[in-house]
Amino acid sequence: MDCLFCKIAAHEVESDIIYEDDKVIAFLDINPVNHGHTLVVPKKHSEQLLELPDELAEPVIATIKKIMRALMNLPDVEGVNVMQNNYEAAGQVVPHVHFHVIPRKKGDGHRHWPGIGYAEGEAALMTMKLKDGIK
Amino acid sequence: MDCLFCKIAAHEVESDIIYEDDKVIAFLDINPVNHGHTLVVPKKHSEQLLELPDELAEPVIATIKKIMRALMNLPDVEGVNVMQNNYEAAGQVVPHVHFHVIPRKKGDGHRHWPGIGYAEGEAALMTMKLKDGIK
Repeated sequence: MDCLFCKIAAHEVESDIIYEDDKVIAFLDINPVNHGHTLVVPKKHSEQLLELPDELAEPVIATIKKIMRALMNLPDVEGVNVMQNNYEAAGQVVPHVHFHVIPRKKGDGHRHWPGIGYAEGEAALMTMKLKDGIK
Repeated sequence: MDCLFCKIAAHEVESDIIYEDDKVIAFLDINPVNHGHTLVVPKKHSEQLLELPDELAEPVIATIKKIMRALMNLPDVEGVNVMQNNYEAAGQVVPHVHFHVIPRKKGDGHRHWPGIGYAEGEAALMTMKLKDGIK
């Protein structure tokens, strides 16, 4: 398996490890959007979230909370984003599930995507389509 | 409790509900960044992720996966972002934990935040600070 995050999890590739246990590893993103930006990664390989075994949800979220707590302890951190990207169209670069944990402060310049609204009837139609797709 | 998402969870305020069970509700964001943008919300009130009880991690992630699967079934969806914002500085508008599940396609115009790198020694220093803050 030629997966960068599997290699980091196996300590075959070096990283700035913040936390690890038997199921999850957390290390600094090498190209942070703000300093302290950390990736939380389940050690077992899954490509995207649909493949993540349900039993890993709790250890992953618990680790995200640990990192968030450590970030909020830093003097200039006022908020935290958690972001998880699936597939290239959504900005996923490494095809091994990972959660970005990003420290924020007011005025750091990062903008959230603008809303586009719904025309009349569009939301109801979308709701119907999505409810049909729930399994 | 004057919380919009608590009222939506209690069906006191109407929303376009995609899915719900006893612990979690998922409904359309009224101002979507792309059509189909859904919010996954634990019904029990927590303001931000650090307050979310660990036992809700699995039902929340399981619901996010259901919504992601339904979104990926739509003909023009090529990827999905999951985003969770904590505190105003990180773009949190409603102070009740919620996960944005956002359908994406190539060329939809949404840009990811640029990396800023680390100068020599900065990453090692940050690693030390964050490891000290892990509890």
